[in-house]
Amino acid sequence: MDIATRVWNHKWKIDPIVRSLIDNDFYKLLMCQSVFRNKPDAQVRFSLINRAQDVPLAKLIDEGELREQLDHIRSLSLTRGESTYLRGNTFYGKRQMFRPDFMEWFENLRLPPYELTRVGDQYELTFEGSWPEVMLWEIPALAVLMELRSRAVLGKMGKFELQVLYARATTKLWEKIERLREAPGLKLADFGTRRRHSYLWQDWCVQAMLEGLGPDAFIGTSNVHIAMRRDIEAIGTNAHELPMVYSALAQTDEALAHAPYDVLSDWHDEHDGNLRIILPDTYGTKGFLERAPDWLAGWTGIRIDSGDPATAAETAINWWKSRGEDPTKKLVIFSDGLDVDKILELHNQFSGRVRPSFGWGTLMTNDFRGLTSGDALAPFSMVCKAVSANGSPTVKLSDNPRKAMGPAEEIERYKRVFGVGDQDEMEVVV
Amino acid sequence: MDIATRVWNHKWKIDPIVRSLIDNDFYKLLMCQSVFRNKPDAQVRFSLINRAQDVPLAKLIDEGELREQLDHIRSLSLTRGESTYLRGNTFYGKRQMFRPDFMEWFENLRLPPYELTRVGDQYELTFEGSWPEVMLWEIPALAVLMELRSRAVLGKMGKFELQVLYARATTKLWEKIERLREAPGLKLADFGTRRRHSYLWQDWCVQAMLEGLGPDAFIGTSNVHIAMRRDIEAIGTNAHELPMVYSALAQTDEALAHAPYDVLSDWHDEHDGNLRIILPDTYGTKGFLERAPDWLAGWTGIRIDSGDPATAAETAINWWKSRGEDPTKKLVIFSDGLDVDKILELHNQFSGRVRPSFGWGTLMTNDFRGLTSGDALAPFSMVCKAVSANGSPTVKLSDNPRKAMGPAEEIERYKRVFGVGDQDEMEVVV
Repeated sequence: MDIATRVWNHKWKIDPIVRSLIDNDFYKLLMCQSVFRNKPDAQVRFSLINRAQDVPLAKLIDEGELREQLDHIRSLSLTRGESTYLRGNTFYGKRQMFRPDFMEWFENLRLPPYELTRVGDQYELTFEGSWPEVMLWEIPALAVLMELRSRAVLGKMGKFELQVLYARATTKLWEKIERLREAPGLKLADFGTRRRHSYLWQDWCVQAMLEGLGPDAFIGTSNVHIAMRRDIEAIGTNAHELPMVYSALAQTDEALAHAPYDVLSDWHDEHDGNLRIILPDTYGTKGFLERAPDWLAGWTGIRIDSGDPATAAETAINWWKSRGEDPTKKLVIFSDGLDVDKILELHNQFSGRVRPSFGWGTLMTNDFRGLTSGDALAPFSMVCKAVSANGSPTVKLSDNPRKAMGPAEEIERYKRVFGVGDQDEMEVVV
Repeated sequence: MDIATRVWNHKWKIDPIVRSLIDNDFYKLLMCQSVFRNKPDAQVRFSLINRAQDVPLAKLIDEGELREQLDHIRSLSLTRGESTYLRGNTFYGKRQMFRPDFMEWFENLRLPPYELTRVGDQYELTFEGSWPEVMLWEIPALAVLMELRSRAVLGKMGKFELQVLYARATTKLWEKIERLREAPGLKLADFGTRRRHSYLWQDWCVQAMLEGLGPDAFIGTSNVHIAMRRDIEAIGTNAHELPMVYSALAQTDEALAHAPYDVLSDWHDEHDGNLRIILPDTYGTKGFLERAPDWLAGWTGIRIDSGDPATAAETAINWWKSRGEDPTKKLVIFSDGLDVDKILELHNQFSGRVRPSFGWGTLMTNDFRGLTSGDALAPFSMVCKAVSANGSPTVKLSDNPRKAMGPAEEIERYKRVFGVGDQDEMEVVV
């Protein structure tokens, strides 16, 4: 018996879900550094949006427990080991990815306050303050809500029922790995932090992928803490929040039309190589690429995060060709709602024509569908997004109108400015 | 880190498979006590028989490791806690099931030597000496061989591959439990010690059955050590070795014809209630029952261990009726090669007509079929039987000629003496 460990474990008042500030996605840190340099004074508001209104979060999750978990996150600061890792480790082949001024700021950071109110069976959870601080809430807030919901369901299960549940989930993931193993040249990373079943499960999934696929195919994880602990690559580039906030900060339609390119211009100054990845769909992929400056066609690749992925990839291929670029040298990162069938289909379809790569999220780290009665552990679609910047609402259109966000009149204005016509609707699963 | 435990674990020269003399079937102890009282001086020889010649045990299992495991078993003696349990616990509703003179002998017992030689790809493993000592080798010898074979296969697997293997086995067992849960009034015990995948796996299976079926349906385990640790009933009555050795000791055909009844006469003196279970198939169920004395019809029930189980149960029902007994009060214990389909079928067929009960063995504690490539962990049919007594060969006929054992001319003599005609052959799976 290890009495000391047992006693130690009982000293925790709660069982914290997020235990580190770098239990966060790598691209958040990259973007945070960029924002810290380029827009340090922007005031933003992030807000939780549960797209699955049939999941009554406020009935499932006790408000007191939610507050305890969020308060715990506010008590975290970077540990010395974490700081040493961020300062000294090589990311994407580059030493000192994180600059000393940013690291000094990060070392002193505590996350800003949150606002939580219950409205019906849902929670309203918002974060307001300076952009580089507030933006770091997104991932841990989502992870806390997802895991508290898991715990609410798990708490009602017997010991062996639990073992069987995890046995089934384990088997399910391994069967996916066995299928992925058959695809020659596959490149895939874990993008599943935000909607994971739990931290331990994500960590287990990463280790299983590593053993099952090997480091050539499983190229890393978006989770910085797991990347550090397991000594693998931290993966990620940039997200929609950059063009969304830049656009909301634009004062005129003309400035708005240019804002998404300003984002990438700032990024161009800071990064090269595999970090130069275009995320083109915020206000419609097609128009974005048509109007893009030529230097953007020289970037390493593109990330496809909404709409029909094959269509978007074909659009990118045609665009590169029209700009005199060789598509076979380009990275195409698929990251929207992937599962094994879709991954294998896209891999087969695009291998050789481009360099396909996959950011596999929720259905890697939280595929508990069909494993409990009433499917109470199935993942659901929940996001935490920048909804305003310096008082102006943000807008996202994406290539799927069901993922559109923002006030109706603003959506219309953005559609006009970015020349977005009719779009195909697609179901949003996760 | 629990350094002390780690260091302690590293002090073991081997990882012992059998760690207790009562990691053995309960009926072995009951029979041992009976033999200790009635035939203490009989000299017997037990021998390993691998019915599955396609499983090359000597290629799979290192002889040195096998010797280490068997030597470890010879080093075991009853611990104080085990002795207290056997002396003080209530078995089958009876206090002091084990008499003080037997317990004193058992407390001083170490298992006698073994003889091991490699012949081709198989091992010849035999045990010779006084019956009450030698008989206790059967179960641990089989368990050691089964688990060393498991380890040989497991040793080549990666950490996560192992996790997935056990996840699959866990899921498989739980799906069986979920099906069994639907059968109202089911009574079932674990009889799977001898051909278990491993000790830990058997212990896990028992705990899962207990949570999944509850103590009304899962009535106990044949494994005395697990029964003690998990505080559940130890289950078992008697086995073929009693009539086989009694018969081998008979000097004349007349004595031989009477020997199986002498066994039960001795048993009748020692036990009552649910321990009065007839095992009728050693030399053919039909003739055995026809010639049985009336007092045997008054026994509590019957155990069916070979041949077609429904046919044997019907034979018993008709026999009870012919002797003026009420079959609906009788216990019928099915224990031969069971899996869920067969259990449910027999339960449905005989509930209400008798009191059916099930001793579920190999396919509960070792159903790793289909879980590894080449099915390298599938259970196989291996037994360890009394092959001679005081120099005379033993014979078993059973209700399935494929389970018959003994020299051909002796088999013929027994068939004549016991009036056994044609029998239906049935495949022996486990």
